[in-house]
Amino acid sequence: MKKNYQILLAKWVITVNPEFEILSDYAVIIEDSRIHSLLPAAEISELDFYHQAEIFDLPDHAIMPGFVNSHTHASMSLFRGLGDDLPLMDWLNHHIWPAESRWVNTEFIRDGFELAAAEMIRSGTTCMNDMYFYPDIVGHRAQEIGLRVVVGLIVLDFPTVWAKDADDYLHKALAVVDEIKSSPLVTAAFAPHAPYSVSDQPLEKIAMYSSELDLPVHMHIHETAFEVSEAEKNTGMRPLQRLDQLNLLNPNLLAVHMTELNEFEIERIAEAGVHVSHCPESNLKLASGLCPVARLQVQGINVCLGTDGAASNNDLDMLSEMRTAALLSKGLSGDARSCNAQQAIQMATINGAKALGLSDEIGSIEVGKQADLIALDLNALNTQPVYDPVTQIVYAANSRQVSHAWIAGSCQLADFQLCNLDEDKIRHKAQAWRNKIKPFDQEPS
Amino acid sequence: MKKNYQILLAKWVITVNPEFEILSDYAVIIEDSRIHSLLPAAEISELDFYHQAEIFDLPDHAIMPGFVNSHTHASMSLFRGLGDDLPLMDWLNHHIWPAESRWVNTEFIRDGFELAAAEMIRSGTTCMNDMYFYPDIVGHRAQEIGLRVVVGLIVLDFPTVWAKDADDYLHKALAVVDEIKSSPLVTAAFAPHAPYSVSDQPLEKIAMYSSELDLPVHMHIHETAFEVSEAEKNTGMRPLQRLDQLNLLNPNLLAVHMTELNEFEIERIAEAGVHVSHCPESNLKLASGLCPVARLQVQGINVCLGTDGAASNNDLDMLSEMRTAALLSKGLSGDARSCNAQQAIQMATINGAKALGLSDEIGSIEVGKQADLIALDLNALNTQPVYDPVTQIVYAANSRQVSHAWIAGSCQLADFQLCNLDEDKIRHKAQAWRNKIKPFDQEPS
Repeated sequence: MKKNYQILLAKWVITVNPEFEILSDYAVIIEDSRIHSLLPAAEISELDFYHQAEIFDLPDHAIMPGFVNSHTHASMSLFRGLGDDLPLMDWLNHHIWPAESRWVNTEFIRDGFELAAAEMIRSGTTCMNDMYFYPDIVGHRAQEIGLRVVVGLIVLDFPTVWAKDADDYLHKALAVVDEIKSSPLVTAAFAPHAPYSVSDQPLEKIAMYSSELDLPVHMHIHETAFEVSEAEKNTGMRPLQRLDQLNLLNPNLLAVHMTELNEFEIERIAEAGVHVSHCPESNLKLASGLCPVARLQVQGINVCLGTDGAASNNDLDMLSEMRTAALLSKGLSGDARSCNAQQAIQMATINGAKALGLSDEIGSIEVGKQADLIALDLNALNTQPVYDPVTQIVYAANSRQVSHAWIAGSCQLADFQLCNLDEDKIRHKAQAWRNKIKPFDQEPS
Repeated sequence: MKKNYQILLAKWVITVNPEFEILSDYAVIIEDSRIHSLLPAAEISELDFYHQAEIFDLPDHAIMPGFVNSHTHASMSLFRGLGDDLPLMDWLNHHIWPAESRWVNTEFIRDGFELAAAEMIRSGTTCMNDMYFYPDIVGHRAQEIGLRVVVGLIVLDFPTVWAKDADDYLHKALAVVDEIKSSPLVTAAFAPHAPYSVSDQPLEKIAMYSSELDLPVHMHIHETAFEVSEAEKNTGMRPLQRLDQLNLLNPNLLAVHMTELNEFEIERIAEAGVHVSHCPESNLKLASGLCPVARLQVQGINVCLGTDGAASNNDLDMLSEMRTAALLSKGLSGDARSCNAQQAIQMATINGAKALGLSDEIGSIEVGKQADLIALDLNALNTQPVYDPVTQIVYAANSRQVSHAWIAGSCQLADFQLCNLDEDKIRHKAQAWRNKIKPFDQEPS
């Protein structure tokens, strides 16, 4: 079969390889879904397939790996702004959970996922780690759209629209694993919601299945001080201690939030190889607590970044999340060198790939890896002049400067336009849901 | 003389008036430089001047007051990214001050100011409070461009390119006050740099002149713990105590940063009517400290927002600054209700106007005030659907959604395009400065 070649000529290529090389006036060459080679721009005409390749001229642009959003609830984008300026448990109990039980169905999942997928691709995210209902629908639609997704096999003790009890959730989880087996862009992770919403028996089964199938476990853990103190009251243990007893602390675990950690716990998760998904904007907005990122990094723990859902952020913008993470780490640690621009970019790309077990395939620009790439146009006023493209991207760039995105070599965003999604249709569906969920005549004046 | 009318028809008008009214399907009517009236959209055809008015149809947009950036060093935009991931004194001593003494001249000031002005208008800022060298050039160019600027009459003890000693700075300051008298868009504030860089005698004179001329005093104060402890060592007093003795603590003072404050100081500045300019992104990036915004607000202190210069932020984006301020206040106070979306918008608009003595003229959409307005297009995917335009702007909108800006009734941004500034020319000048300041052959590989 004839191969498909694309040559991306860029001012800068930020490889995020282990040496964090920055290449100037370089070409990234894509063969089908993978990175074929990296060459000085001046040498591309020597390539055998030069004349059959599609060439993208990106003279003011930086190419970097696409963002890996390591924690989100994509379909919740339809609840964006439904309850703001509220703490976590009030927001969940009085706004989000009632809305979910009233509105979530297969159509909601599909429309919400598409809204999130479009927003993510538009802002440079090429892979998301999702946790929500109907992972089968999400996986199916992700493959159709062409977005790389780790679908979350949600598990809860209580019944929802997706399953009736823990056994049913697990049964459906394994069915989804089977369903997505042949999908090149979709993988799965077990997604027990949180220590307080999933009991020991299903968690033990998840530990076992995760080990047998080598699948990640994606879970909210130690999100707030309240969660930890309630667990101590109810179980006599902090949640991490309980998860340790249930054999969940291992390199398959992606622990999300982790705002409440003592020194012993930090050492234990470092030793166990647990990954941490830091969601700074959601943690701040819900006043959930503050993840001690600098302390985790000192211990060698792999920290990646997530936006969380749009209902608690309220956008799905990884560039802005990266900036918030870098700024917050400096402010909290009192060290301006903490979470420097290079580390911030690693957190938003390769570290997410590692946490999801995908770092052999994505997260950096290296020959042989999947071509999950984005280009940022640094010609905008807010990123001029450019002394250093890396700090400029982290501290000054706006996600609207993402001009192009490729996922597995397929161009998903070209010159700021989505290639495979219809923005108007997505917007109209979102507005229709809005009018159903909160009719205008019920608004306070 | 024939009057000029503009009618802006918007989905939402966020007035930021004392009642914080949100008007739906409303028109803002501009007569010359001022807001003539606010009317339901359905009633505009009854206006006498309807047929001669220019009509802007903004069906998916929110109109709000333009942002007031209460602390910046505009021309430093040419140093954006010159030194990142560094603490304040290292950054100043080894990067910024050497670069300033080598490069700042009248051409640098003009080119840097234009780059900043363009970025600001593009992102919805209609008034900036500047502090840098050559306020005469800044004032002159601001009036030509059509941007509202409070020029900072910089005062330092040591010689710079602008003046040779404190008396010379003051002499030049008074000359600038005289020069800008007839400029409708330009006013002035005394801008003694900081307690550690200006001695008692010039500060006493500034207190006197500020009172006589009723001009604001714009000063970095208590930016870091180091500043406070050094002052205690050198003067036996904390800087605020010294400024109090010098009669500077009064409603003309806009104290910038204020990260180190004890309870006594908070009470004292509340009682004195001092305004505080909070610059969260700069404070985080330089790890300078954290301004206790929630505690200040409880005491009734007027807190406004600033980006600081682009060399320490690294953008001049007030929408992002507003979000950072709201999120950080929640995170630090542990209260998700702290700095809610309404308060965040007030900080970014009317509170800045109050701090600059301009709140009779700008900062809210009220009949008779200057028409300093912006429109945001909320149709973007990241702000869909809209349950509440106010929280959507603060927590989800991107500054690239600012579609229009008017300053004193003059349209400065229309359909995302700058009306009075040449982006390409500004960009080329910025790139020429970059190549002079840090030639590519001197870059580390």
